[in-house]
Amino acid sequence: METKLDFESNIFTTEKIKLSDRMEKIVRGGRHLFPLLPKAFEGIKQIGVIGWGSQGHAQAQNLRDSLTGSSIRVKVGVREGSKSIEMAQAAGFTEESGTLGEMFDVIRESDLVILLIADSAQAELFPIIFKAIKAGATLGLSHGFLPGYMKTIGADFPNHINVIAVCPKGMGPSVRALYIQGKEVNGAGINASFAVHQDVNGKATDYAIAWSIGIGAPYTFQTTLASEHRSDIFGERGILLGAVHGIAESLYRYYKAHGASPFDAFIDTAEAITGPISKKISKEGILAVYNSFDGDDKSTFEKTYSASYPVAVELLTEIYDEVSSGNELRSIVAGGKRLASHPMGKIDGTEMWKVGERVRLERNESILSVPPVTAGVYIGVMMAQIDVLMENGHPYSEIANESVIESVDSLNPYMHARGVAYMIDNCSTTARIGARKWAPRFDYLLMQMAYTNIDDNQYMIDTELIENFKNHMIHDVLSVCGELRPSVDIFVE
Amino acid sequence: METKLDFESNIFTTEKIKLSDRMEKIVRGGRHLFPLLPKAFEGIKQIGVIGWGSQGHAQAQNLRDSLTGSSIRVKVGVREGSKSIEMAQAAGFTEESGTLGEMFDVIRESDLVILLIADSAQAELFPIIFKAIKAGATLGLSHGFLPGYMKTIGADFPNHINVIAVCPKGMGPSVRALYIQGKEVNGAGINASFAVHQDVNGKATDYAIAWSIGIGAPYTFQTTLASEHRSDIFGERGILLGAVHGIAESLYRYYKAHGASPFDAFIDTAEAITGPISKKISKEGILAVYNSFDGDDKSTFEKTYSASYPVAVELLTEIYDEVSSGNELRSIVAGGKRLASHPMGKIDGTEMWKVGERVRLERNESILSVPPVTAGVYIGVMMAQIDVLMENGHPYSEIANESVIESVDSLNPYMHARGVAYMIDNCSTTARIGARKWAPRFDYLLMQMAYTNIDDNQYMIDTELIENFKNHMIHDVLSVCGELRPSVDIFVE
Repeated sequence: METKLDFESNIFTTEKIKLSDRMEKIVRGGRHLFPLLPKAFEGIKQIGVIGWGSQGHAQAQNLRDSLTGSSIRVKVGVREGSKSIEMAQAAGFTEESGTLGEMFDVIRESDLVILLIADSAQAELFPIIFKAIKAGATLGLSHGFLPGYMKTIGADFPNHINVIAVCPKGMGPSVRALYIQGKEVNGAGINASFAVHQDVNGKATDYAIAWSIGIGAPYTFQTTLASEHRSDIFGERGILLGAVHGIAESLYRYYKAHGASPFDAFIDTAEAITGPISKKISKEGILAVYNSFDGDDKSTFEKTYSASYPVAVELLTEIYDEVSSGNELRSIVAGGKRLASHPMGKIDGTEMWKVGERVRLERNESILSVPPVTAGVYIGVMMAQIDVLMENGHPYSEIANESVIESVDSLNPYMHARGVAYMIDNCSTTARIGARKWAPRFDYLLMQMAYTNIDDNQYMIDTELIENFKNHMIHDVLSVCGELRPSVDIFVE
Repeated sequence: METKLDFESNIFTTEKIKLSDRMEKIVRGGRHLFPLLPKAFEGIKQIGVIGWGSQGHAQAQNLRDSLTGSSIRVKVGVREGSKSIEMAQAAGFTEESGTLGEMFDVIRESDLVILLIADSAQAELFPIIFKAIKAGATLGLSHGFLPGYMKTIGADFPNHINVIAVCPKGMGPSVRALYIQGKEVNGAGINASFAVHQDVNGKATDYAIAWSIGIGAPYTFQTTLASEHRSDIFGERGILLGAVHGIAESLYRYYKAHGASPFDAFIDTAEAITGPISKKISKEGILAVYNSFDGDDKSTFEKTYSASYPVAVELLTEIYDEVSSGNELRSIVAGGKRLASHPMGKIDGTEMWKVGERVRLERNESILSVPPVTAGVYIGVMMAQIDVLMENGHPYSEIANESVIESVDSLNPYMHARGVAYMIDNCSTTARIGARKWAPRFDYLLMQMAYTNIDDNQYMIDTELIENFKNHMIHDVLSVCGELRPSVDIFVE
């Protein structure tokens, strides 16, 4: 089921990396490559970044900074009267300097149109956006929602434009924060995948790679639009967001039922996941968490992993089915339409997240430890996500980034600073709808199936499953990916 | 948006009932009408009841008993080697007497084929079932899954057969139990809707009504296949099953967080809903629950209702969208296919349902009371379901039966005897998938939005919402429907 991929660049050095039993071709990034960007963007005089959301503000600023001194203009396009105008102006994009305009004007003018408006707006507006784009121009997407949705309704891209995607494996604020940190540590940044869906002038691949390097990706790997949209929508419903929420809520109750105070229960769940567990995985890999346990703690991890992994495979298989059948995308579009009459409320008012505010205020990072039950559940779900993606033929780079790296290097550090509930209440509508839909499912299934087994003295560790975990290809893949990028403690404003 | 309906019968007396501001045409049932059944079934020598599940065993036995003494044969069809064969034989259906056979043989032979096999089997087998049915015969369905699913894939019924539906508004065991009780109390039974989708010989309407009277429906009302399948799949995800589970789980935690013991928390939640609240609604209507409260309890009910109703409208609107778009049906089919590799586990092993076993053992029905918070949440969700169905133009009879009567007269008494979790673990695969999918959503949304408001001293009762509740048309509709059927305490084996 492996997706066969290959590409050539006329500008950048490609490189083959060995990821476990496969070779994957990639391009390393870095600031030393910025002087090559104008040549790679040959034929592009203006890059229009449409939308000033999470990705929009990050990519527009990074591209502008990376192209400083070149003749390529980066112009932001937003809706007339949008509240984003002031924010874009504060970041230096202005109508006077010709770097800020009405979105359809900017689309009509630009040679590369990077479409970063909300998914629901893309679903609604794509026919008129396609009409507005110049023949021979390039449409750029940063995740697979639009092509996924177009597929469910049988729509297609116009055939006179390039269609490419560059998909940072991290949230917009991380894309910007690590780019800034990259000024000090060359190569710090968020990895990205790229896909070339249509190439009418033979330059689409270099446009995509240049775009990726320009926003600061330490390494860029190849995928397809279909593979990207599935892994992306799936991943944020899984371990990136939805699963983390469901794991944290259910484990919080689990520890409380076993006598923990609310404060301690929070520290042993949300806090442990977004803090020490993520940090250890980021710096030393998944196995390092397992190897940090001895004796009873190791057995507890193994029992918890044995009980959690199969439950997660069941639910993640369902999520993958829903995403790949188009159901999930249709639901997102329908959900977006309901927002006018039924806006989503905030989820951060419950006991757990109120306790979390206090925990963060009183945090002492140095004493946070890794409880084996929490690690067993979290890593069990993470490994299940990896295996579901493997079974569906995704590139190893995509699997590692979408299941591990984006989680421990971008989203979890952000949640550690602000809280899981805050993250869900403030992410993209697509991710928010998805997390609200699937987190409770993880919660219930873990509570009903996994935790009842953990507490059952008769329940045995699945030794074969533990061996598979210890010998899993992901450990090698992550260590190779880790070498492609300097480790940086991400800064959250 | 009201669906316009009308029908004529050549055999049975129709009657118009006034339900609030509408007139709906119905047929009353009763054992005194059984002698009319052979004439109504004119042209039908054999009724094949295909499948021996929840509805199959009930309808086959009821029809056989109702047609005793006539020349019409009721023959059960099951798969070769099915485990159901013994059960059907124990109920008196045997190969020797020509009343039990292989399902496709029975389909080929029968003049009325009542298709009661599992939904997933219907979705898989319908093309060969349609080929097997005789030209001019009648296909009977008991809920709307198959036509709903066929619509999502663009399939249609063969045009040389009648297609009718008779849909009992209660689970199979209740259809059988109340039929038996009906021997003592004429008219006791489960109401049913009927729909005539294709009528090739002009007799389809009387076939449907006869079928409905024959299985013991106290009254039969008209609907369409589309309206039936939406309200049916929607209803079991809502207040009939999924919502009850999510309400009970979330309120159990709510009471515990406010100091209740597990035992008392169970009594005040699942036990109160399936016991005294349901009984009161069944015998005296929804408003009687409200009117039973005084002083602070009344305010607490009003505050809880105000906080719960909008949350339920939001989620039930989503469920209705998912069902009517076909997403939910596609998910059910995909879910059915996953069962071979990922069977559904039981949900009854958690603390709450273990406590419930003890509560039922020690039950003293006479001291069970109605806590105003539980009543406010439950009735808030029930009223939201009624309003979502009204907004979507369903017949009032369908709304009352699918949101209230089926709940308090069939499902809740069963859950009161066996437990909510047992019910979910043992219902149809379609309902089970749906309850597992949506119960956690009710839980989370109520916890996040409604219960935080209940505990907020600043949160105000929505007096307009309470007035709408008090003056709602459903109270009149339920009292008219109640008069059509003697009140019977349902017997659960």
